[in-house]
Amino acid sequence: GTRDYNPKQMAIREKVFNTITRCFKRHGAETIDTPVFELKETLTGKYGEDSKLIYDLKDQGGELLSLRYDLTVPFARYLAMNKITNIKRYHIAKVYRRDNPAMTRGRYREFYQCDFDIAGQYDAMIPDAECLKIVHEILSELELGDFRIKVNDRRILDGMFAVCGVPDDKFRTICSTVDKLDKMPWEDVKKEMVNEKGLSEEAADQIGEYVSLQGGMDLAECLLLDPRMSQSKQACAGLSDIKLLFSYMQLFQVTDRVVFDLSLARGLDYYTGVIYEAVLTQAGVAPVSSDAQNGAEESVSVGSVAGGGRYDGLVGMFDPKGRKVPCVGVSIGIERIFSIMEQKAEASAEKVRTTEVQVLVASAQKNLLEERLRLVTELWNAGIKAEVMYKKNPKLLSQLQLCEETGIPLVAILGEQELKDGVVKLRVVATREEVDISRSDLIGEIKRRTSEA
Amino acid sequence: GTRDYNPKQMAIREKVFNTITRCFKRHGAETIDTPVFELKETLTGKYGEDSKLIYDLKDQGGELLSLRYDLTVPFARYLAMNKITNIKRYHIAKVYRRDNPAMTRGRYREFYQCDFDIAGQYDAMIPDAECLKIVHEILSELELGDFRIKVNDRRILDGMFAVCGVPDDKFRTICSTVDKLDKMPWEDVKKEMVNEKGLSEEAADQIGEYVSLQGGMDLAECLLLDPRMSQSKQACAGLSDIKLLFSYMQLFQVTDRVVFDLSLARGLDYYTGVIYEAVLTQAGVAPVSSDAQNGAEESVSVGSVAGGGRYDGLVGMFDPKGRKVPCVGVSIGIERIFSIMEQKAEASAEKVRTTEVQVLVASAQKNLLEERLRLVTELWNAGIKAEVMYKKNPKLLSQLQLCEETGIPLVAILGEQELKDGVVKLRVVATREEVDISRSDLIGEIKRRTSEA
Repeated sequence: GTRDYNPKQMAIREKVFNTITRCFKRHGAETIDTPVFELKETLTGKYGEDSKLIYDLKDQGGELLSLRYDLTVPFARYLAMNKITNIKRYHIAKVYRRDNPAMTRGRYREFYQCDFDIAGQYDAMIPDAECLKIVHEILSELELGDFRIKVNDRRILDGMFAVCGVPDDKFRTICSTVDKLDKMPWEDVKKEMVNEKGLSEEAADQIGEYVSLQGGMDLAECLLLDPRMSQSKQACAGLSDIKLLFSYMQLFQVTDRVVFDLSLARGLDYYTGVIYEAVLTQAGVAPVSSDAQNGAEESVSVGSVAGGGRYDGLVGMFDPKGRKVPCVGVSIGIERIFSIMEQKAEASAEKVRTTEVQVLVASAQKNLLEERLRLVTELWNAGIKAEVMYKKNPKLLSQLQLCEETGIPLVAILGEQELKDGVVKLRVVATREEVDISRSDLIGEIKRRTSEA
Repeated sequence: GTRDYNPKQMAIREKVFNTITRCFKRHGAETIDTPVFELKETLTGKYGEDSKLIYDLKDQGGELLSLRYDLTVPFARYLAMNKITNIKRYHIAKVYRRDNPAMTRGRYREFYQCDFDIAGQYDAMIPDAECLKIVHEILSELELGDFRIKVNDRRILDGMFAVCGVPDDKFRTICSTVDKLDKMPWEDVKKEMVNEKGLSEEAADQIGEYVSLQGGMDLAECLLLDPRMSQSKQACAGLSDIKLLFSYMQLFQVTDRVVFDLSLARGLDYYTGVIYEAVLTQAGVAPVSSDAQNGAEESVSVGSVAGGGRYDGLVGMFDPKGRKVPCVGVSIGIERIFSIMEQKAEASAEKVRTTEVQVLVASAQKNLLEERLRLVTELWNAGIKAEVMYKKNPKLLSQLQLCEETGIPLVAILGEQELKDGVVKLRVVATREEVDISRSDLIGEIKRRTSEA
């Protein structure tokens, strides 16, 4: 249920982390870290029936502790505890779920989450739009192929349920059923609503009409004029905000990928406003590790790689006086992105390098260990990434093989003659081309050649 | 017993991590990651009586699990499980100890370790010397003040105990007592040996003479000629290797900081050869968080910031056939380094920035939100780190205050006139100097100004 990450996987991970972190920093985010375990009571009552998936620590005396289940609840606890009312933060860390994962599908009980959130009382939809800009930037930079970002609003869903005649106490459970639309055809979803959840057929059919709608700002405008929908104040507030969101997204140049989709529901209870989810749409992307990110807590459509929304009530649950801090955030489905990147690396002819070594200091003759150590020291001291083989008298062939295997591009070869002449033979591994460089020019020459690459 | 890390602490941590990681990469290391929990049985019997400090997970069905106690045992388990016989890897991650920490002293039950290890059968002392080179580079680059690296060898200690008449079964316990010499005067250490551990006074006095010795390669040469010490084959093997180690360290240009110190013992049982420990020696460095890194498992001298050694037997404990993989490694006392850096930041006039934002897009007039969003999008798309305030009509003063508070160096100010003229007013926060830049030159100008800084 857990796994080690080998150097090749780590190299791919590092690349993905760097791209994502760079984007978060470009948008001015700070980062925080929280402990891997929280007080058991902090997590209690936040995840509904999925609380059974929480890992508890053994009672060895002291407080009862549990491993964190996500990064959002610790973030809300952190804000309340430190009385922070506005922050833009990202947090990349592992979370834990006592799932019984089908490991072959890439689901593990320990996995990374990668969250960006904006907390604070601000003018409507500006931070919400920035979250979508961030999703757009990250998915574009990672070159994962075409994607689509679906947006909706919890207030629109609730308003829609109300005008369709869903009883108040069935909003959440009907919402969970709507959430299955990306995996099940409407007929099955309707059956569940009517047969299992006891909704009237008429109400279900009305919902069915609405959730088939997709569009842009124009759809929001139409629905504001819809005789039924416009009866709900909540729905109208949501629709006006969707319009505003689209106007900001136009300025952010991301509307090409965004669709207002009334079938988007998302599972989590705590969303209070805008919700969104990004899916990869390009044929050829294998549906990998379908629930790695979100586990059982919210169903995720095949290809989902990011999701989030506004949750204005969560921080208040941790404040003794219930003071609210409005929040909006996005979670990047980083485990699925890793899987895709690993598949791409596997399929590609190019080898994944697990080190960044630029030059191997080698020799063709015996008894030159000291000279090799002297030279590699010069290179290290100049900030060059360099290695020597840990052998007194390695064969030149095995030194060259090491370069081939690990992708080291250059070899600095020392021999009696080179030492006498005050030069080093610099060999390009790929082309086997060799050239004598004077010792004093070597560092500059290596820097020049490796900055080009 | 645990803590959150706020953005300021994280900014300092990131800087330290970057310096250390850069050094590890310069030396050609790969990285791996292992799960935060291991099978309980993997950790059993590896930490002696400190096993009581291991955090167990609650038995909720499935395997019995414990939180990792260090990174060395998971590394050894990883090598054995994957039949890896040579690797140079680093691993920076959190470990867990059920200590009852005095939090004011900076000890926590969750803390980072930062390990670099070289596994493989190589010619003697080359990897060992590289570990010391790495310690030297990291401590120098972090500018923590003067430091000294003490080296010794377990075989020299064991040989010394043998020739001084310590019974075989008392080697480990006497070794633990020697290890206290950096915290206790010799008289107290001797008392413990004689009164508590039942050593003869004569044997204790002989040990006392040896452990007062400090020197360099010359000391190793002297001891090889010492009539008593030279009777121990083990001691001679250790002393010859110390000589070899010093010869490599000379080539690596690190002997200025290294001292061969016969009182260095280090607590862990698993060391089999060279051991070392780096201590800060500069007056004015407060003795912070004295055991954060090593907890109760090994006593650490005040000011210890790195330690390690050779452990050739540990991997074999995880191999079904007991196949050994020789290893040497170093652990950077990163929690203590964080504490020192935090103290330095506290004492310094310079503010720690928690974001890297280069420019705030601002306006002095109302109704320019859209223009601000348009401009910040241009900047983001060009890779510039930029922010806008999430308000429709923020005051110019509050925008400038935000820059002062968070250290944003530049402000790009838009107004009706600037829009008409196709320019942006670029303001340098520090000097209040303002200059109109044509819109098309803005990105280049910001890049030029922020790469200088």
